[in-house]
Amino acid sequence: MPLSAFLFQRALQASQRIPNHSHLLFLFAVSSGGFVTYADAKSENDPKLPQVSTKKRIVVLGTGWAGISFLKNLNAYLYDVQVVSPRNYFTFTPLLPSVTCGMVEARSIVEPIRRIIRKKKGEVTFWDAECLKIDPFNKKIYCNPCAGSNVEGGGEFIVDYDYLVIAVGARVNTFNIPGVLEHCHFLKEIEDARDIRKNVMHCFERASLPNLNDEERQKDLHFVVIGGGPTGVEFAAQLHDFITEDLAGLYPQVKHLVKISLVEAGEHILTMFDKRITEFAEKKFRRDGIEVKTGFQVVNVSDKTITMTSKSAGEASVPYGMAVWSTGIATHPVILNLMKQIGQSERRVLAVDEWLRVCGCEDVYALGDCATTVQRKVMEDISAIFKMADKDNSGILTLKEIQDALKEIYLRYPQVELYMKTKHMTDVVDLVKEAKGEEAKVSAELNIEEFKKALANVDSQVKTLPATAQVAAQQGHYLAQCFNKMKETEDRPEGPIRIRESGRHRFKPFRYKHFAQFAPLGGEQTAAQLPGDWISIGHSTQWLWYSVYASKQVSWRSRMLVIMDWLKRFIYGRDSSCI
Amino acid sequence: MPLSAFLFQRALQASQRIPNHSHLLFLFAVSSGGFVTYADAKSENDPKLPQVSTKKRIVVLGTGWAGISFLKNLNAYLYDVQVVSPRNYFTFTPLLPSVTCGMVEARSIVEPIRRIIRKKKGEVTFWDAECLKIDPFNKKIYCNPCAGSNVEGGGEFIVDYDYLVIAVGARVNTFNIPGVLEHCHFLKEIEDARDIRKNVMHCFERASLPNLNDEERQKDLHFVVIGGGPTGVEFAAQLHDFITEDLAGLYPQVKHLVKISLVEAGEHILTMFDKRITEFAEKKFRRDGIEVKTGFQVVNVSDKTITMTSKSAGEASVPYGMAVWSTGIATHPVILNLMKQIGQSERRVLAVDEWLRVCGCEDVYALGDCATTVQRKVMEDISAIFKMADKDNSGILTLKEIQDALKEIYLRYPQVELYMKTKHMTDVVDLVKEAKGEEAKVSAELNIEEFKKALANVDSQVKTLPATAQVAAQQGHYLAQCFNKMKETEDRPEGPIRIRESGRHRFKPFRYKHFAQFAPLGGEQTAAQLPGDWISIGHSTQWLWYSVYASKQVSWRSRMLVIMDWLKRFIYGRDSSCI
Repeated sequence: MPLSAFLFQRALQASQRIPNHSHLLFLFAVSSGGFVTYADAKSENDPKLPQVSTKKRIVVLGTGWAGISFLKNLNAYLYDVQVVSPRNYFTFTPLLPSVTCGMVEARSIVEPIRRIIRKKKGEVTFWDAECLKIDPFNKKIYCNPCAGSNVEGGGEFIVDYDYLVIAVGARVNTFNIPGVLEHCHFLKEIEDARDIRKNVMHCFERASLPNLNDEERQKDLHFVVIGGGPTGVEFAAQLHDFITEDLAGLYPQVKHLVKISLVEAGEHILTMFDKRITEFAEKKFRRDGIEVKTGFQVVNVSDKTITMTSKSAGEASVPYGMAVWSTGIATHPVILNLMKQIGQSERRVLAVDEWLRVCGCEDVYALGDCATTVQRKVMEDISAIFKMADKDNSGILTLKEIQDALKEIYLRYPQVELYMKTKHMTDVVDLVKEAKGEEAKVSAELNIEEFKKALANVDSQVKTLPATAQVAAQQGHYLAQCFNKMKETEDRPEGPIRIRESGRHRFKPFRYKHFAQFAPLGGEQTAAQLPGDWISIGHSTQWLWYSVYASKQVSWRSRMLVIMDWLKRFIYGRDSSCI
Repeated sequence: MPLSAFLFQRALQASQRIPNHSHLLFLFAVSSGGFVTYADAKSENDPKLPQVSTKKRIVVLGTGWAGISFLKNLNAYLYDVQVVSPRNYFTFTPLLPSVTCGMVEARSIVEPIRRIIRKKKGEVTFWDAECLKIDPFNKKIYCNPCAGSNVEGGGEFIVDYDYLVIAVGARVNTFNIPGVLEHCHFLKEIEDARDIRKNVMHCFERASLPNLNDEERQKDLHFVVIGGGPTGVEFAAQLHDFITEDLAGLYPQVKHLVKISLVEAGEHILTMFDKRITEFAEKKFRRDGIEVKTGFQVVNVSDKTITMTSKSAGEASVPYGMAVWSTGIATHPVILNLMKQIGQSERRVLAVDEWLRVCGCEDVYALGDCATTVQRKVMEDISAIFKMADKDNSGILTLKEIQDALKEIYLRYPQVELYMKTKHMTDVVDLVKEAKGEEAKVSAELNIEEFKKALANVDSQVKTLPATAQVAAQQGHYLAQCFNKMKETEDRPEGPIRIRESGRHRFKPFRYKHFAQFAPLGGEQTAAQLPGDWISIGHSTQWLWYSVYASKQVSWRSRMLVIMDWLKRFIYGRDSSCI
């Protein structure tokens, strides 16, 4: 029995039961038969007739940064909101590396969804379930309960939506390297962090057993971190601190045998940061005794050794005690399935437009790590842009006409503004000069060919947003604002002019604002990349890190707990129990 | 290959390697072949000749209450101490029920062994391993590493001892009832408490899913606690508080469907407590809506239902969401194996004498839940006691002779003192009266037959000590004191007179002092049984509970953390994340 037919049968069964908590109208229109069932989802105790909610139904998939940011900012009075996630809590992921070594406790950085929901006004329902399949044509999602079910058949259920907000995040990408899934630890979920913590201790206990020689002990105490991105680097730094500050005193017989290796396929670690930060980090790690193996590609992981290749050194296998895989993200199966349905099967990542709408279907939005914004290229629309700017239809753009249109162009094509900034152009004249050379001084007018030439390189400035919490949170906030203003903007759209059609877009497109990105390097030292090419490194940045991360907590409860954890660590050190 | 042969081979392999951390001399004398190998367990880096430690080697099995209490009180300068345990931390077990519902965090009630060891002066080594077999005749234990091993063959090893202190605790007793092991949660380890906490949340999430009817939701929210002892009662109370104080607000749609049942085979719950406490607890539970099912015996547990029988109601099956099994303890397999070797195979629990020495072998001690003290009966020694008291060998005991011997008798046979106290006898004359009736007034002398008659019933006062943390801790302290005084007492024994031989026992026998036993009943109410038939119930007792439990923590760190957790709960409630 195919899944959809099975789920349909389950839904039929369900419709014959009498749930008491939901006043939704279940309307099934399964494509195969066009059969319609009508399930009165009302309580037996409720004598009133079923009422069809007039509110539009928003279904949110996921309770990570994007999902929660959307939920917190949404005016839940306006919609019937349902949240579906296999985790009934939000995790403050930037502190996950801190959990691995007991800087903070797992429970301090999570916040139950139902607590967040309770604080909100309006009706929000949470289902602790995993979405198995999205049907964007019939506006349904198929879900499977996470905590199992006492009901025969497993309790799968279907949720209908008017708007779907996909914020399921990404999966770990093993690049199909054999052994990674079986033998490496990951660092995406709270359970991963806990497992790592327990395993670090296991390695030390294992290495302390009798009847081993130094070589065997060294094997147990070789910690390999694969991936020189911010997470991998922070984990390596935290582990180094944990060992030198706490474990060295508790395991004096084996402390000299510990080794941490950081393996990165590229030429440098922290490549997304400024070169100065990269250099500082590499130097600090070398000083700390952390081996930075850049230019090494992992090709195989067995239970006892990791095999890597490098151009200079060829292939080599190193024994290890614990390996943490922290490189690359992949698309969730449920998203891959959706992509197939909507003609995105050629892509690796789900594409959304600048309004976070999934390309190829209606009323589906995707944000956070599970999607990539595809910025409309200037060169695709160049004729239409020219036409829009050429108010007098003369076939020639005057300087004034360009000047007038520039604001609209910036709004719709942010790469133009970015391009001018990068090229240190202060004025539109500079742009015209680019096309006409010194001739611009004489005639500051452009025909279509010259206009094309002027903007020929701007699309090179289109960049994919990084898969960070900051981006996801801003997208969630943006989309919630759009939903909140849905009514008002119907008549008074606030977006840019439609280039190929008439009128305006309803909303401004999403625009990411970079605040700061931190790279904690251990020993109370942190590097930060601030807006405008500013960088900051050292102890003071660590304190900035403490204050930013404390203030960004999702609740006062979390904030208090995280600060208490930091204090606890200052006073008593980190716990070394294998739990 | 049998285990011993396999381990022997492993040990041989090990002897060929060069460990660097231990200066022990490994001397293997396996019974089968009498073959002796001589492994120089010295570091390659150490140029000195191997030195045989002149200190006696104490091996402690287990890091629970008994083991840690022994370790903390032992003068580790006098011995070469090795601790073997599958847990590298001590758990403050009386707070385990609090962990199940998030009153305190798991990490707050554990203390790493290595931290305890570091604080001690003298040499103490810890092995994170499980003892698989004790060989009391060759004074060896066979161990298996817990965290696995990178070494071929699994890394099993052998530890030699001069004195062995067994403090491995007990296992859960399922009484071979089918399904208990598979479907019930237990409450002995920190992992159990965490599992329960996660599962309570799973039950609530499961019951909140769509398409269920009330009956199905009720099933998910039926929490069954089996065992009306202090742990089961406290867990039921904690769960009730968790639900009413925190979860009811987060799961308003299903809160009215929750049910907690407490199943007890006996006539009452908390039977080890005073009747007034039992009555109060049963009344309070009924008022709280906790169903107290006394007189019900569980006979089968399936994944969905629990089957019980009772005299009045016959057999009945009830559906459930989660079941916690908290009744009865059983002996560890390693202890059962030891018992077989030393001729205790007929017994259910390992027998030790009043000095905690395992009966049937030399230099092996057992304390805590893994052993039971077999108190020497007065009637077994009655003739010898008479002879000892009868200083003038007249065949008649005068009142003075009895009076003189009484102190020694009390010391060796505490049941005599207890008997007199229970019978409200203030004087030895009362005891003589018991034998001779009113005649005692005339002649206060006893012949052997009358003496026997006087003491005929005292042995009924011999009671097994309860399997509590209090007993284990006191035994650990007692045994450590004995080991500390081993030298001094060689010439100056401080124990009671040997009744059947000459001289004195080296040490006083272990004597348990009851301080207080608490039964927290939820809603900030606790009952306590204090020494001397005093009982205390109510809010004030809850505060007594808080202060006793805070003060009894094993370290200042734990104390601070536990108090912080209590405060956190007061302010923010308990966390409901499924982690």
